[in-house]
Amino acid sequence: MPPFPAATAPERLLLGAGPSPVDPRVLAAQAQPTVGHRDPFAFAVAEQVADMLRTVFRTRNTATLAVAGTGTAGMETAMLNLVEPGDTVIVGVNGSYGARVADLARRAGAEVVELEEPWGRAVPAERIESALRAHPETRVVALVHAETSTGVHQPLAEVGALLAGTEALFVVDVVTSLGGVPLEVDAWGIDAAYACTQGCLSVPPGLAPVTFSERAVDRLRQRATSVRSSYLDLTGALAWWGPEHDDHHAVPVNALLGLHEGLRIVLEEGLETRWARHAEVGELFQDHVQDRDAVLLADAGHRLPQLTTLAWPAAVDAATLRRRLLDEHGIEVAGGTGGFAERGWRVGLMGQAARHEVVDRLLDAVDELLEG
Amino acid sequence: MPPFPAATAPERLLLGAGPSPVDPRVLAAQAQPTVGHRDPFAFAVAEQVADMLRTVFRTRNTATLAVAGTGTAGMETAMLNLVEPGDTVIVGVNGSYGARVADLARRAGAEVVELEEPWGRAVPAERIESALRAHPETRVVALVHAETSTGVHQPLAEVGALLAGTEALFVVDVVTSLGGVPLEVDAWGIDAAYACTQGCLSVPPGLAPVTFSERAVDRLRQRATSVRSSYLDLTGALAWWGPEHDDHHAVPVNALLGLHEGLRIVLEEGLETRWARHAEVGELFQDHVQDRDAVLLADAGHRLPQLTTLAWPAAVDAATLRRRLLDEHGIEVAGGTGGFAERGWRVGLMGQAARHEVVDRLLDAVDELLEG
Repeated sequence: MPPFPAATAPERLLLGAGPSPVDPRVLAAQAQPTVGHRDPFAFAVAEQVADMLRTVFRTRNTATLAVAGTGTAGMETAMLNLVEPGDTVIVGVNGSYGARVADLARRAGAEVVELEEPWGRAVPAERIESALRAHPETRVVALVHAETSTGVHQPLAEVGALLAGTEALFVVDVVTSLGGVPLEVDAWGIDAAYACTQGCLSVPPGLAPVTFSERAVDRLRQRATSVRSSYLDLTGALAWWGPEHDDHHAVPVNALLGLHEGLRIVLEEGLETRWARHAEVGELFQDHVQDRDAVLLADAGHRLPQLTTLAWPAAVDAATLRRRLLDEHGIEVAGGTGGFAERGWRVGLMGQAARHEVVDRLLDAVDELLEG
Repeated sequence: MPPFPAATAPERLLLGAGPSPVDPRVLAAQAQPTVGHRDPFAFAVAEQVADMLRTVFRTRNTATLAVAGTGTAGMETAMLNLVEPGDTVIVGVNGSYGARVADLARRAGAEVVELEEPWGRAVPAERIESALRAHPETRVVALVHAETSTGVHQPLAEVGALLAGTEALFVVDVVTSLGGVPLEVDAWGIDAAYACTQGCLSVPPGLAPVTFSERAVDRLRQRATSVRSSYLDLTGALAWWGPEHDDHHAVPVNALLGLHEGLRIVLEEGLETRWARHAEVGELFQDHVQDRDAVLLADAGHRLPQLTTLAWPAAVDAATLRRRLLDEHGIEVAGGTGGFAERGWRVGLMGQAARHEVVDRLLDAVDELLEG
């Protein structure tokens, strides 16, 4: 067959549920010549990436690295490595990502206790507490910090305190929160957290930053059964990221260079400044979009600034509005999903997108389409 | 913490076991602005990538796509989706990659029958035939087309013919062969094949091209148990790559743009011309390196042109020579591994590296170091 013509990517303003807009510096960094994953240069880049990730996760965990896959690969790395068949795992399920965590825990062989909450609500710490009393054999408690399907901001510190001194590991999904809202892995007693690159870090998708406490790594070392995946076996990844640099599988070094540059940008800004920027811009958008009669779907007091779920009034065709926003203005927002599908939108103001001028551009385009 | 300085990748000539040198066109393609994986542009790119992969795999399989991970993720996708706990799986083990296939089949729950052959030899079809007689319940037979640890070129057509009409699926590892040596997925009766991008396709690592026959997809549809991974569940990947474009997890669209451009380069050259180029350049190198008293480790008649394993005479410190080649000449070759570790090298002349001038540059550098 003759080859297709070259693919020329359109310029989009990415305000969906990820990916977020990527700084040209990051794109240029990952377009550098490919280097082998056994090259001393690759080891040095990995060490710096791990160090910068520790700063962003707020942890001293040695076992901090990027898994060679997207966010779901990070989720699965946590579940497959920390869960053995028959283990009891408590999962907060208040949206699609919580449901996915429960599914992955089951595939890893767990007996899953699902704590269901209505879409839009956080999981109360008291529910975890009573579930732990009912299931004292619990080995893992898993919560989603930023539920991308509902826009809910899950409090974590109280749950972490609850789990201190128990046998249960605290596993947290920070896919859409890392680098966007406060997260304190060590101070909140989190044993494992996994993220993606294409959320508040504003790096193209392809890697999943993860961190595991010493307690979590001990759990892995003491497994009676082998991990059900080789690709996502953390022992292999730790061997390459550790001082021995043994390679377990190929490492996407170009993607790692992109993450390196993306983390440099995060640290140049400063993590706390970045959190404050997300909080301010997200709140501004949420105020202004309510002026257009949109209804926010996440509970007040538990709203993520970087990911807003909203419903348009019945008179507005939300799906058409979204399609026209992409076609006529080059702006991507995400549709609602699951319990929030009808009339719903999900608007991400993550990383590079959390800026006043971005909110202005989005609202101007929406106004034009609503009036047109 | 203050950020690290920017990471500037050194220029390397990549002649190891992968990655291979990447054309600047591919690097530029994947440095285009990030586009969402729910964008119609991403769907169009994916459809074209799948079409071009069909040409390169020589198949009409609908289920042809790129998994969001490196080659091992492709291997695991094949094993986890096609193997159910208790299934008998016959695996040819004549090097590290065969051993990895056996490990992955076991993690997927298989009863594995390992057909061990000495390093450097191919697995004879007669061994498969007698194993099938001894294990008529066999559900999968797996072989490695290009054993990257030994440089052995495994014949496949006869085994495919043997399996026709049996219940056993034929799964083939083409990680280091796709785009470099003849491969005929449909004509040879192969049910599943998986590759990487950083071998003879000369695209940075991060995606695993895979193809599955209708018979293989039926096997997946009829599973009694759920696949042990969600990330590598083929049903999810097929949903995004298929006409419904349902997303199962994020897709690394930038990497996909790189693969798109890399496949365009393959088709511009023509697949058969590319095979001939690899054959000619590999043979040339193998002749010339023997003139330097290196001993080729793969059996004559079963040598891969794109990946040569060799041992230097006892007087040569192979590890030091290799390190100096990298440090003083910027040329990466791989060390021997497993049974071929001692005095061994693995030299990849894959994709963009399979050129006369590359062989000249390598041999000139080796000569200078050997004389120095």
